[in-house]
Amino acid sequence: MRYLMLASLLMGFSLIQAQDAEQATISAIYKSALTNYDAYDNLRALCTEAPGRLVGSKASETAIGLLRAQVEKLNPDTCFLQTYTTSSWNCLSPAQATFQYGSGIGSLNVVNLGLSASTPSEGIQGTVIEVPSLGALDSLGARAVKGKIVFFNKPMDNSKVRTFSAYGDAVDVRFSGASKASGYGAVGALVRSLSTESDDFPHTGVSKFEKGVKPIPNLSVSTNDADRLSALLKEHPSLQLRMNSTTEIIGSVQTSNIVAEIKGCVHPERIILIGAHIDAWFNTPGAHDDGAGCEQMIEVFRLFKALNIKPLNTIRLVLYMDEEMFQSGSKVYAAFAGNEKKEHIACLESDAGGLLPTGFGIDCDKEALVQSIQKQTAKLFDYGIYVTDKSHAGVDIEPLKDFGFPLIGLSTNSQRYFEYHHSANDTFEQVSRREMQLGSAAIASLVYLIDRNGL
Amino acid sequence: MRYLMLASLLMGFSLIQAQDAEQATISAIYKSALTNYDAYDNLRALCTEAPGRLVGSKASETAIGLLRAQVEKLNPDTCFLQTYTTSSWNCLSPAQATFQYGSGIGSLNVVNLGLSASTPSEGIQGTVIEVPSLGALDSLGARAVKGKIVFFNKPMDNSKVRTFSAYGDAVDVRFSGASKASGYGAVGALVRSLSTESDDFPHTGVSKFEKGVKPIPNLSVSTNDADRLSALLKEHPSLQLRMNSTTEIIGSVQTSNIVAEIKGCVHPERIILIGAHIDAWFNTPGAHDDGAGCEQMIEVFRLFKALNIKPLNTIRLVLYMDEEMFQSGSKVYAAFAGNEKKEHIACLESDAGGLLPTGFGIDCDKEALVQSIQKQTAKLFDYGIYVTDKSHAGVDIEPLKDFGFPLIGLSTNSQRYFEYHHSANDTFEQVSRREMQLGSAAIASLVYLIDRNGL
Repeated sequence: MRYLMLASLLMGFSLIQAQDAEQATISAIYKSALTNYDAYDNLRALCTEAPGRLVGSKASETAIGLLRAQVEKLNPDTCFLQTYTTSSWNCLSPAQATFQYGSGIGSLNVVNLGLSASTPSEGIQGTVIEVPSLGALDSLGARAVKGKIVFFNKPMDNSKVRTFSAYGDAVDVRFSGASKASGYGAVGALVRSLSTESDDFPHTGVSKFEKGVKPIPNLSVSTNDADRLSALLKEHPSLQLRMNSTTEIIGSVQTSNIVAEIKGCVHPERIILIGAHIDAWFNTPGAHDDGAGCEQMIEVFRLFKALNIKPLNTIRLVLYMDEEMFQSGSKVYAAFAGNEKKEHIACLESDAGGLLPTGFGIDCDKEALVQSIQKQTAKLFDYGIYVTDKSHAGVDIEPLKDFGFPLIGLSTNSQRYFEYHHSANDTFEQVSRREMQLGSAAIASLVYLIDRNGL
Repeated sequence: MRYLMLASLLMGFSLIQAQDAEQATISAIYKSALTNYDAYDNLRALCTEAPGRLVGSKASETAIGLLRAQVEKLNPDTCFLQTYTTSSWNCLSPAQATFQYGSGIGSLNVVNLGLSASTPSEGIQGTVIEVPSLGALDSLGARAVKGKIVFFNKPMDNSKVRTFSAYGDAVDVRFSGASKASGYGAVGALVRSLSTESDDFPHTGVSKFEKGVKPIPNLSVSTNDADRLSALLKEHPSLQLRMNSTTEIIGSVQTSNIVAEIKGCVHPERIILIGAHIDAWFNTPGAHDDGAGCEQMIEVFRLFKALNIKPLNTIRLVLYMDEEMFQSGSKVYAAFAGNEKKEHIACLESDAGGLLPTGFGIDCDKEALVQSIQKQTAKLFDYGIYVTDKSHAGVDIEPLKDFGFPLIGLSTNSQRYFEYHHSANDTFEQVSRREMQLGSAAIASLVYLIDRNGL
């Protein structure tokens, strides 16, 4: 009995000691992240030297070189490019839109949407038909739409506290609007920007044309100018809109993911994946989306190295190409992982901006794994990680769910996110070093906890 | 028995109905706050028309007029100025600091600290003695300090997650450094800015000279230039620093708090106070500190009016003058409340910036009241209000604690706060409308819950 009590006591002590050691390491991770400027300086370099790094662009090649050098400086055990060939699209010069009614003329703040077709050099011109939704367009049908420019004026529901939910509700017109309009014979499409604010920044994003549908010029207009145009159309329904767009389809281009590892000292064959995406739209430095994510994940490596944390399992960094348009990098890595057949204990992604971290979203169908992750994230409550629930975790890691791997995405304060997203306003200056670094520390701490405690 | 069951059931139903009604009202408050631009537009006007609104300044009079008009536009039941006479201080022209050693010369980014003395028009000049703390200055004593300029180079501990805690640790040198230095015969003082970042913005703030101590010129230097000067002093200990400062003591000036009420329809004699401060340092638009706080509290009135919420108790708005230097407005209101002898159910303040709200800090010695407040704030968890604990609640409402009234301060994401605080960087552009409005909604919701449920 006495021995048993002693044994229990010792076990209790060692549990407390382990918890203390764990908390000490987490504290050291946060202290280092908050006082170090490397990730922030790296982000400045990325935004300055490689803005508009859309897959296949020259800037994307610059970004790959620059990020690879940032990773290699940390002496990982491996670092290599996962090179592949893909097709792409790009915008060659800033789009323009001007309007005219009677003696009134003016221009709108616009930007090309992804996969938009070029106009002839003199532009296209037409009357405008405004619709609030895809359904409204369907109700009008080809007779009303043929030969016209369709103006999709569907605002985000800004009364929602969760901005990503408002984005999810409104994104359908940007994604499918032009394709549907073209199907009904429209000559062009103009889409209200997905922004939470009334301002002058046009926000781009991907749109897709259904197979067999002719691509048409497809622009995004700032929220202020969408309101202005809508008001003008009520007074001047025959207003003429002229649009200019110069874009190109790139048939074949070589590009790469960057992959690097700190090998596990006990289970090198088991992977904890940390990922983010390299590419950013042609019109933006892509600071929050997703430069910050890349630099946070590189910072995880720096933190492990600087604090001499030897992972039991391999930590694999994957910086993906082409999240924004075709997710080709994501598919290439998933195929690689399928061939390689290494267990991924967890796959983490940071693609919600370098903003104040508030928790993690878990995408996993196994309830026991979800609870096991929540048990670890609960240890970060004092650092502001207060909500970890089931949700979408990240576009790049999504195909890895098919292997049964649990997916985890960093959740952030999303209140400012759609002021920046896919616009020229997504600049380095909009990133707070401490907020970004709290994100780095939260990810590094969770990787450390999963590595030590398993799931 | 059956009747009793029925009665219990009905009580249960009415409880659920009351909870549903409560949640519906909170939801309506958030929806209105997030889609309305009045508070944001009001803040733009305040920052544009009345920057540098230190007590006694012309800008402070402009601010009083402007804020009063914003309040009166909402048709409160009463709105009046609480006018009083006080003394003040102001900075008359931008301070300058230049250095020289051998053939090297340069200038530093500086700003006057509150109550700094003027220099003669040609400035003062002296050798510099650098100290890391008040204690280090005491150790040196008068012999080492006499005739010199003391450079207090005590950085904030940026490894702390809680920036207000790091600020609290470092603020002593700014508050008392110059007074101590003058006591030892120094001719001037230079204090490293209290900023979390390495940048070029000097941050001002209050400093006090002990009775009988001669005020000396006292400047704050940006963190980057503090590092630069420190490095230079190591190489060139005889470096000469020249400082220019033009300030004035204002012996007597009339100024005002703004007080307005929506009268309670059941207990007009009971008060729920909501407060913020009008004044801002001479060198800043004062957007986060505390323009946003003023506009959030005015927005509480707008929300109650727009949603036709009739408070049971009186909601009293107090916009205080002179938080930054002497807290004269706070004292005047406390004296008024002492004479008036009306019960204040709770006193709320917003003075932590228009940043993402995360919870509330409660300053109250009665544990039952603290728990009662926590019971109400817990209802706002889905809106991101996740931590309500005991802490400092606000400088303006602090004297009201002596009456036994519970004090409640809005807590925010403080990661960016000390990039802006008391510097020219505290601009309207640094405020996110949604973050500020989530704060407005959190305060309005808590006022509504306390009004309906009591404490």
